[in-house]
Amino acid sequence: MKIRLFWVGKTKERYLLEGINYYINLIRPDAKLSIVEIKEERGKDIKKSLHLEGKKILKQTESYILLDEKGKALDSIEFSNLLKDKKNLDFVIGGAFGVSDEIKEKASLIISLSKLTFTHEIARLLLLEQIYRSITIVKGKEYHH
Amino acid sequence: MKIRLFWVGKTKERYLLEGINYYINLIRPDAKLSIVEIKEERGKDIKKSLHLEGKKILKQTESYILLDEKGKALDSIEFSNLLKDKKNLDFVIGGAFGVSDEIKEKASLIISLSKLTFTHEIARLLLLEQIYRSITIVKGKEYHH
Repeated sequence: MKIRLFWVGKTKERYLLEGINYYINLIRPDAKLSIVEIKEERGKDIKKSLHLEGKKILKQTESYILLDEKGKALDSIEFSNLLKDKKNLDFVIGGAFGVSDEIKEKASLIISLSKLTFTHEIARLLLLEQIYRSITIVKGKEYHH
Repeated sequence: MKIRLFWVGKTKERYLLEGINYYINLIRPDAKLSIVEIKEERGKDIKKSLHLEGKKILKQTESYILLDEKGKALDSIEFSNLLKDKKNLDFVIGGAFGVSDEIKEKASLIISLSKLTFTHEIARLLLLEQIYRSITIVKGKEYHH
């Protein structure tokens, strides 16, 4: 299975960078995982910046699951079903200001990690943990709680 | 405001320990925050171990909010209302095997961070981030997304 995570901007918090790498290493024996870091646009016009970031994402993926606060809340079993029997799976996480309307419209599915708002950098960690958890569920491996 | 977080066992993942300390440092100027680390019981009888851990918690707090997967899902505004006008606030997070029935029965409120399952160590980070976010909401401070 090939999984690509598209996200906007670098991971600035050092502890999260460590946590992200921790899960990347756990996942890589079981899946081809790549992180596609989209360069952040920093124009004053936020809408325009999001549009430009979105265009860069849409150049590289045609079918993706978007993470968004207003998306569908899944439990871990439902989440793991997203991975089942998939050859390719792309996820998109927006930046501090979210994503463009176009990215929302073209998403094949929009999911939410929690009703609570977390930083978009924490969302990266949570997505990776959940992917790792899914792999262990799909493979019937054991995983700590 | 005095906030106490009761949790069972040490934080073993280094990146989470860093993240936890990162948020403790952000919160401490605005609230008296203490972490009460309850010693993990490692008996073969899980129910008995949970009961013993629970007894240690109940010795120290009479009124607390429990974090549990099956609890009520709040959004960040609702969560921040838990902190409003409170002088003392205690939270309890269980260990890898959760908490005893007694801890559930005596909780003044049971909340859930997400429909997704995360490790109990990640829950510590998420709770701290949410407390920090609440403080910024209550104080009207700015906080990154």
